[in-house]
Amino acid sequence: MAKSLEEVHPVKAVGWASRDTSGVLAPLKFSRRATGEKDVQFKVLFCGVCHSDLHGIKNEWGMTTFPIIPGHEIVGIVTEVGSKVEKFRVGDRVGVGCLVGSCRTCPSCANDEENYCPKLIFTYNSTDFDGTRTYGGYSDVMVVDEHFAVHIPESLPLDAAAPLLCAGITVYSPLKFFGLDKPGLHVGVVGLGGLGHAAVKFAKAMGAKVTVISTSPGKKTEAIERLGTDEFLLSSDKAQIGAALGTLDGIIDTVSATHSVAQLLALLKSSGKLVLVGLPEKPLEVHAFAIVGGRKTLAGSFMGGIKETQEMLDFAAKHNITADIELIKFDYLNEAMARLAKADVKYRFVIDVANSI
Amino acid sequence: MAKSLEEVHPVKAVGWASRDTSGVLAPLKFSRRATGEKDVQFKVLFCGVCHSDLHGIKNEWGMTTFPIIPGHEIVGIVTEVGSKVEKFRVGDRVGVGCLVGSCRTCPSCANDEENYCPKLIFTYNSTDFDGTRTYGGYSDVMVVDEHFAVHIPESLPLDAAAPLLCAGITVYSPLKFFGLDKPGLHVGVVGLGGLGHAAVKFAKAMGAKVTVISTSPGKKTEAIERLGTDEFLLSSDKAQIGAALGTLDGIIDTVSATHSVAQLLALLKSSGKLVLVGLPEKPLEVHAFAIVGGRKTLAGSFMGGIKETQEMLDFAAKHNITADIELIKFDYLNEAMARLAKADVKYRFVIDVANSI
Repeated sequence: MAKSLEEVHPVKAVGWASRDTSGVLAPLKFSRRATGEKDVQFKVLFCGVCHSDLHGIKNEWGMTTFPIIPGHEIVGIVTEVGSKVEKFRVGDRVGVGCLVGSCRTCPSCANDEENYCPKLIFTYNSTDFDGTRTYGGYSDVMVVDEHFAVHIPESLPLDAAAPLLCAGITVYSPLKFFGLDKPGLHVGVVGLGGLGHAAVKFAKAMGAKVTVISTSPGKKTEAIERLGTDEFLLSSDKAQIGAALGTLDGIIDTVSATHSVAQLLALLKSSGKLVLVGLPEKPLEVHAFAIVGGRKTLAGSFMGGIKETQEMLDFAAKHNITADIELIKFDYLNEAMARLAKADVKYRFVIDVANSI
Repeated sequence: MAKSLEEVHPVKAVGWASRDTSGVLAPLKFSRRATGEKDVQFKVLFCGVCHSDLHGIKNEWGMTTFPIIPGHEIVGIVTEVGSKVEKFRVGDRVGVGCLVGSCRTCPSCANDEENYCPKLIFTYNSTDFDGTRTYGGYSDVMVVDEHFAVHIPESLPLDAAAPLLCAGITVYSPLKFFGLDKPGLHVGVVGLGGLGHAAVKFAKAMGAKVTVISTSPGKKTEAIERLGTDEFLLSSDKAQIGAALGTLDGIIDTVSATHSVAQLLALLKSSGKLVLVGLPEKPLEVHAFAIVGGRKTLAGSFMGGIKETQEMLDFAAKHNITADIELIKFDYLNEAMARLAKADVKYRFVIDVANSI
C-alpha cells in the first residue's frame, strides 16, 4: 500500500493544496524529506502567488497531479543545514524559485542555465529524483538542495522580494540574454501584470527608456505615475502606433492570452527583438516579411538559472527593486485566486505564510 | 512627353528585359547616367540569375514596373571612374549586388547596414534618387556609386563569384550576425538551391558541422558527396528527425515555399536560432511553447551591407568558395528561367553577358 503523504518523509509539513479541478485550496498535511548533507531546511515566511499557480490548481495545462501544493516564489529563514552545505547557515534569509533540481551535468546545467535542463525538476507538481512528488511554498517548511536556494539581500523586504524569484527572474533573464540591458535602449513591455510591472522596473534600472504597450487605456496613469514608465502606447490607437513604428530595440511580451505579434514586430527597429515570456495557447501567426526585411527576432525565454537569479536579486537590492504586492493570509487565498483570474491585483499577491498557516 | 528609355541618360546601354507578366525576356535598348564624380562605370562580364529575378519578371510579388531588366549578381571590369572615386581604378574587377543606393545617414547606414536603410535603392526595379528607374545586370554596362561597388578578389573566377553578391552575402550575413560562425557549432541548412548550397560552403568554411535538411531523398548524395555536407536529414523520416531533435545550434532556412517551422525549431538546442532568408508568402505558425521552453529564436535576415559584402568576398577568396554554376548565354535565358522555376539547376545560372549581348 502506498504511504500517505504524511508518511512519505520524516519532516512534518502542512500546506494549502488543491485536490481537484475545482481549484479550491485547503489545508493538507504532508511531509518533507530529512535535511540531506547538501540540503537546507527553512521556515517559509512568504510565498508569492504566480499566475501559473492558478493554471496548476485547476489543471488548465493538463499537467497537474492532485493534490497540488503550489508556490514557487518562496522566502524564509534557514532552520537547518546539511553537513556539506557551504552557501548557507542557520538564520540566513533564503529564497527558492521555480526549480529545485536539475541533472547538473548537461550543457545547460554546465552553463548555469538549469532552467533549460531537460531533466529540470519544478518546485511543485514535479517528480523529484527520489521518485516522490514536489510540493511548493504554500506550506510551512521547505527542504531543498542548497544549489537551488538563493540569498535574499538584507536590504530587500522579504515579502516584496518573494515575487522576484519567478516574476523577476523571468523578465530579468531575457533583458540580459538578448542584450536589452544596455543604457539608452528603448524597451517595450507588453502586459502590465506581475511580470510586466517587474519588467518595467528592471528595464528602467538598466537604463532603458521604457514604453508600456497595452490594450487598456486605464493603465496609462498607472504605468506612468506609479511605475515610472516613460511612454504608454494604446495598441488600438492607430495614430499612436503609427508614430511609434520602428522605434523599439526590444520588447518583453508577458501576455499569455492569444494576441497578434504583427504589431509588436512592426514597432521594432531593424535587428530588434520581441521576446515572449508568456505562453499563449494558440499558435502565433508570423509573416516572414515581418522579420526578414528588418532582421527581426521573435524569441522566447523561460525563467532563469540559479546563478542568474542570485545576480538578479543583487541587482534588485542595488536598485531598490521589489514587487508591488498585496499581502494576504491563507484564509483569503481562494478569493485572491478568483481576483487573480480577473487580473484584479496590483501586482502580486503574496501570502503571509508564517502568520496564517 | 516622357523621354524614351534610350534618351533618359547619355550612356547607351542594352539589356534583356521583361515587358509584361509573361516574363519573356528580350533585348531592350536603354541608357545609363553619365559617370558622376563618385561613380564607377563598368563593362558587365557576368550576371547571376537569382530566384527573385524570376518573381520580378512575372510581377509575382506585385511590385514590378515594366519594363524590368533584372540582375543583381553583377561582375565586370571598370571602364571609367569619376573624379572623386577612391576605391577603384580603370581595369579593376568590380561587383555589384542587390543595392545601389541608400540614405547614408540613418542608423542602419551609419552601422554599415545599408541593406536595412528605409530608403534603400535596389539594383533593379527601384526608383533612384534622381527619379529615374534602376535597371540590373542583364545588360552590357553599369554605372554605380563606388560606395555600392565591391572588389572581386583576384583568386576568384568572375563567373562563379557573381552569385556570391546576392546568394553568398544573404547567407553569410546571418551566419555572422547570429553567431553561427564559431568553429564547432552544428548548423542546419534548409533548401539546397542557390542560397542553400552557398550556406553549406560558408558554414563549413567557418568550421561548423553542417546538416542539410530536405524533403527530397534524392539530394542526399549531392549534399554529402558534392558539397561536403556532414549529415543529411530527410524531413519526412520520423526516426531520423527524432534522433536529431535538440542537436542544432542554428539553422539557415532558405526555403520560400510555405513550410512548417515547428520541426525546425524542435531540431534546435536550447538558445538555438532559426533564421529565415526566404520569404514564404503565407504566415508561419509558431507555437509559443516551441520557442519559450528552450529560449529559441526565430529570426529573419535580408541580404547584407556593402562592407560585409566585401568581407564575405575576401573570406570566400581565402577559403576558395565560389558558387556551383551553369554558364549560359542570353539566347538560353528564357529556357533557363523555365528550368529555374522547376529548381532544375545546380546551383545557379550565370549569364555570360559580354559574350552574348
